[in-house]
Amino acid sequence: MEKLTGKAIIAMGGGPTAVINQSLVGAVLQARQYPHITQFYGAFRGVEGLVEEQLVNLSEATRHNLEMVARTPGAGIRSTRVKPDEEHCKRIFDVCKAHGIHYFFYIGGNDSAETCRIVNKFAMEESYELRVMHIPKTIDNDLLVTDHCPGYGSAAKFVAQAFSGANLDNRSIPGVYIGVVMGRHAGFLTAASVFAGKYEDDGPHLIYLPERPFDNDRFLADVEAVYRKYGRAVVAVSEGIQSAEGVPVAATLVADVEKDAHGNVQLSGSTSLGDALMNLVKEKLKIKRVRSDTFGYLQRSFLGCVSDVDASEAREVGERAVQIAAWHRVDGSITIERVGDYSVRYKLASLQDVAKETKSMPESYIEGHNNVTTEFKNYARPLMGPLPVYERIHAPKVEPILTRDSPTTLL
Amino acid sequence: MEKLTGKAIIAMGGGPTAVINQSLVGAVLQARQYPHITQFYGAFRGVEGLVEEQLVNLSEATRHNLEMVARTPGAGIRSTRVKPDEEHCKRIFDVCKAHGIHYFFYIGGNDSAETCRIVNKFAMEESYELRVMHIPKTIDNDLLVTDHCPGYGSAAKFVAQAFSGANLDNRSIPGVYIGVVMGRHAGFLTAASVFAGKYEDDGPHLIYLPERPFDNDRFLADVEAVYRKYGRAVVAVSEGIQSAEGVPVAATLVADVEKDAHGNVQLSGSTSLGDALMNLVKEKLKIKRVRSDTFGYLQRSFLGCVSDVDASEAREVGERAVQIAAWHRVDGSITIERVGDYSVRYKLASLQDVAKETKSMPESYIEGHNNVTTEFKNYARPLMGPLPVYERIHAPKVEPILTRDSPTTLL
Repeated sequence: MEKLTGKAIIAMGGGPTAVINQSLVGAVLQARQYPHITQFYGAFRGVEGLVEEQLVNLSEATRHNLEMVARTPGAGIRSTRVKPDEEHCKRIFDVCKAHGIHYFFYIGGNDSAETCRIVNKFAMEESYELRVMHIPKTIDNDLLVTDHCPGYGSAAKFVAQAFSGANLDNRSIPGVYIGVVMGRHAGFLTAASVFAGKYEDDGPHLIYLPERPFDNDRFLADVEAVYRKYGRAVVAVSEGIQSAEGVPVAATLVADVEKDAHGNVQLSGSTSLGDALMNLVKEKLKIKRVRSDTFGYLQRSFLGCVSDVDASEAREVGERAVQIAAWHRVDGSITIERVGDYSVRYKLASLQDVAKETKSMPESYIEGHNNVTTEFKNYARPLMGPLPVYERIHAPKVEPILTRDSPTTLL
Repeated sequence: MEKLTGKAIIAMGGGPTAVINQSLVGAVLQARQYPHITQFYGAFRGVEGLVEEQLVNLSEATRHNLEMVARTPGAGIRSTRVKPDEEHCKRIFDVCKAHGIHYFFYIGGNDSAETCRIVNKFAMEESYELRVMHIPKTIDNDLLVTDHCPGYGSAAKFVAQAFSGANLDNRSIPGVYIGVVMGRHAGFLTAASVFAGKYEDDGPHLIYLPERPFDNDRFLADVEAVYRKYGRAVVAVSEGIQSAEGVPVAATLVADVEKDAHGNVQLSGSTSLGDALMNLVKEKLKIKRVRSDTFGYLQRSFLGCVSDVDASEAREVGERAVQIAAWHRVDGSITIERVGDYSVRYKLASLQDVAKETKSMPESYIEGHNNVTTEFKNYARPLMGPLPVYERIHAPKVEPILTRDSPTTLL
């Protein structure tokens, strides 16, 4: 097949991850092997930079600099929440054409895949060959077709380690602890809290996912039962939990609901859900020590909590996108297929299939209304890689001398 | 000097840290060298376990188990928020006497040192030789006499890494980010956010400590100035910030203020301060993208973020406490003296001197009303050990073809 000669451009869309720069660097360095990819541009602030023609020449970045950037969380060439309309997409195509760009790479979620699809449409209408590749990225892990999404493993690792610590803290001074985790519609990230536990009575004891309707009374009954059993309770809650009527529990509590350009309710950055649930438990169950944390932006950006598996896959989807476009003159979205236990293969899906919708946790990953299954654990564990270990003291009880009754187990 | 033969006991008080178990394990293993320390007990739930005679025999824990526990965050034998009164302290002494305990070790902050002092008083009144040692621990870093406190370095490392990530995230999609950090009266932990920045325009751009009165209008002016300059702003705020009248900014906003047994207002576990400041910026400065995170319990318990220096010093204060008590038959609080740059020496202070009060950031560590000095950085940097590195892309701008005006710097 004859090679398509021209420049390439890469952009980032939506919330950044701990490994999004791996994909960027993978793409840029992979392209240096192909003389027909003449230069590699980066769009500053995603589609905003494309529309405003704010571009940088990544071909002039050194390999060492890029390798350091690959290890850096956040969007190295900045990102955007702007969802381009048809006019914007036309303008993006015009900019590509003016610069002789024939390879277009966009790292993002399903909205970014949709942008890819529309830009591709304009190119085809003008019979300008523009190879458009979507590179998957989202901590929500909610893209269709692919087995999982780069960015998820590292965020899941953070959530697991955060709940491990929270569980140990809660065990130190018992009470009820509620941790609120990101994930608007899909519970994958909240579900990763299950890896925090090691011993049978470790938290999180209850996991509430957006895939199951949330009921205040049932929640209180759950917490009370755990508290009675263990004298404490660690609860993982998705920010996206909804009532049976489909009303986000968070949205019903926030006075001024902010919406982003995609029409999505802004859930992160407000901690009302955690506070509201905390107050509910305090008031109804009369438990004095009730605490709530909303993990917020730490879970997608914390410097120093990266899954090696996630980093390496994020790197390779970037490399694959360039390789496939450079060799095969096709468009699409890179997907990860799980083969064996655990290894993966990279494939290409159509932009339309990935852009269409998002996915939720499958039924087989959810147990009842407040837990996850072993099947989920088997699915998610390899994506995080090994977690730090911790241990309890194993020591016998001392017989009391002054006191009559004393509990049989202490540690 | 003749050796004092008898059992030893250890307990933990107050909020746990990432390295508190290092001190526990240091003490227990150090004591195994001294035949005159016949057994080593642990009090379950701090002074609560002492009063209720809920004890475990740590002499029967294996070395391997203890070494694994040393690496585990949280209070390995559990902790308590209970502050014992005189009657409780008398009971603690009675339990010690009944069990033939002659060595009493208490890991905690200044309240724990005060408990040590009172228990010691009862022992002296009855001419029962009880060697009472306070082992310092607090993420607040607010104990008197000692240069710094075990637990602080690891929490500071978490705060620095959290703000590094938050800064990179904020740079990816600009706006105003407010991170609320623990520290009721002392700003040491909030101040550690300064280590998040690498480049000149990196956040945190503003650091608000409880040592300086907080003024809403001045805060808004600060944020606006930074936002105008950089198009974004990352702000570190202590949970303990107060108005000029000494009213905690958080307390004025929380309807039901909960107090702990020490009469302290419960600040953590409620995120109202961050939300209130976020709404203030949104409303007054008309900035759309404003976000707030309250780091909460993650900063003292996160599994997998420990300072090596902190862990090793926490270990040694535990060892030192036992060694000094075993050899010299004295009481006191272990302190860390800084010698050279950077090394330390361990010394003994009187219980009374440490129990008395807490300390705040010295004036020489604070710059103006919203920053810290190089002297603080020189003080705190060695306590955290090396932080993960990150880097920006260094690549030149591409000349626009379709657009007239374009900014001169992009990345």
